[in-house]
Amino acid sequence: MKKDNDDLLKEISFLKHEINRSLKKILINDEPRYLYDPIKYSIINSGKRLRPILVFLSGKLFKSNVNDLMKAAVAVELLHIFTLIHDDIMDGDDIRHGKPSLHEKWDISTAILSGDAIFTLAQLAISNLDKNAYQRLNEISLLVCEGQALDKEFENDSSISMDKYLDMITKKTGSLLGLCSELGAIVSGQEIEICSKLYSFGVNLGLAFQIQDDYLEIFGEQKLMGKSLGSDIHAGKQTAMTILARSMNEKKWEDFTSRKTDLQGYRDFFLANRIDYEIKKLVEYYINKTSECVEFAHSFENNFLESFSNYILKRRY
Amino acid sequence: MKKDNDDLLKEISFLKHEINRSLKKILINDEPRYLYDPIKYSIINSGKRLRPILVFLSGKLFKSNVNDLMKAAVAVELLHIFTLIHDDIMDGDDIRHGKPSLHEKWDISTAILSGDAIFTLAQLAISNLDKNAYQRLNEISLLVCEGQALDKEFENDSSISMDKYLDMITKKTGSLLGLCSELGAIVSGQEIEICSKLYSFGVNLGLAFQIQDDYLEIFGEQKLMGKSLGSDIHAGKQTAMTILARSMNEKKWEDFTSRKTDLQGYRDFFLANRIDYEIKKLVEYYINKTSECVEFAHSFENNFLESFSNYILKRRY
Repeated sequence: MKKDNDDLLKEISFLKHEINRSLKKILINDEPRYLYDPIKYSIINSGKRLRPILVFLSGKLFKSNVNDLMKAAVAVELLHIFTLIHDDIMDGDDIRHGKPSLHEKWDISTAILSGDAIFTLAQLAISNLDKNAYQRLNEISLLVCEGQALDKEFENDSSISMDKYLDMITKKTGSLLGLCSELGAIVSGQEIEICSKLYSFGVNLGLAFQIQDDYLEIFGEQKLMGKSLGSDIHAGKQTAMTILARSMNEKKWEDFTSRKTDLQGYRDFFLANRIDYEIKKLVEYYINKTSECVEFAHSFENNFLESFSNYILKRRY
Repeated sequence: MKKDNDDLLKEISFLKHEINRSLKKILINDEPRYLYDPIKYSIINSGKRLRPILVFLSGKLFKSNVNDLMKAAVAVELLHIFTLIHDDIMDGDDIRHGKPSLHEKWDISTAILSGDAIFTLAQLAISNLDKNAYQRLNEISLLVCEGQALDKEFENDSSISMDKYLDMITKKTGSLLGLCSELGAIVSGQEIEICSKLYSFGVNLGLAFQIQDDYLEIFGEQKLMGKSLGSDIHAGKQTAMTILARSMNEKKWEDFTSRKTDLQGYRDFFLANRIDYEIKKLVEYYINKTSECVEFAHSFENNFLESFSNYILKRRY
């Protein structure tokens, strides 16, 4: 049965608290401080914990073992933190969760090594579960690397089509959310059909999430976002906003981008050309697809998944 | 039964060929080229493949399944390649196996991402084996990270004692060779006692190997080594050579290092103070310890392990 928003908010708040407690517990070593100080800095943060929460919301459908779900949840959050640390180096992003990113606070060597160790901790967190969990975690990790590689390839290439962009974010962002919802099923040994529907749920949610991120990167509130707005566009990255703007009127977009402009300039342009409206429609399209993927679970008790999609749709950061 | 050197050389040459074939086979993807071109560059190299060979030599003791051994062998070599790529960035090493290191040939971002993907490929290579195999792979990966962190902490700290140095190289180098020989036993489900003896064998072999590496970094032949000699010492790294020299006569060593000197200068100093002789004694000490660890296998057929230790002792690069 689809749960309403109040129940979901309570559940999210409870899960977030429990997940943060478990994340703290994995920090058993203090030395060498060169390694463990930055690891602590990265793991104890103000992250939304959406990915591990999704593991639990999916696992609830099958009344999966809570301890096993927590192992999977901790693993995906660590995997996520690891990718952020390395991506921040590659993309030159200096702020993360409102604080200096790891390579800014320390240096690139420290950030590379801490990221490697956090990835290893993710592997250890999941190593006692069904082999399939470990296998999928790593298949998805490879996809995430491919997605990041495509993202780097696309930098400053203004010919990228929306299809190619969607393929890139499917790998870079969608696959990890797919893994999260799939893990909820893997942990309790569900059939491959169910697992793959939940994977698709997560992928579509990830697409909605990333496209919305591209929107919020322009129209969000700097303070809430915890990072500097407009940085992707200024770094020559393709985003759903820029690709849509170009595809609607290439000449107009080229004229606009040939002039130096600030964040407000971008905002005005996107509003004047209703790109904001088109983007919101695209996000809703993928949110609707998430519902189709979990139709099988309509009558299940404790079905928070659709409410979770809508929660994502309404987020402001 | 201890095998003689000719048998060992034949076996090493055969295994190296088979391992290289298997490593090539894991390269199934061509795109994105941003990711897979550097991965190919790193995997297809002139490396000695000592680690995966050790997996096989250990596995031979128990007539372990050859396909399973190959999975473990490929995993440890990929793990090793991954650590070299990231270490080369951290340590600013520009040459590897006689070619530009990955971040030199491409850039730091490419090297970080390719390393991450190769680490992931290592996980996938081992994911079908006994759970214990990937559990140990990751426990050791964390130790290797700790070892690298200690190495970074020790840079330019000339007060490091030999004990601390040995602890660092136990983690950074020894543990991975320990994993290799242990995996040969894990793959065929040997008892924990046997596994841990083989782990100690590898750790001691790793210590001998690293101390010899410190020797070869000064006294080796540039062409054979495939990297620039003396770079560790010039970068302020502590090595077994410098620590021994300091511990034998601190004042003399400080006087010597306060003057700017070249590689030949170091060579002359170490020879004049018989540091080369002391280092060779230390290498032999650890090689002898490897023999003690595999006493249980003295009467086993196909026991190449002790010959392998001696082969390591005689290496020139």
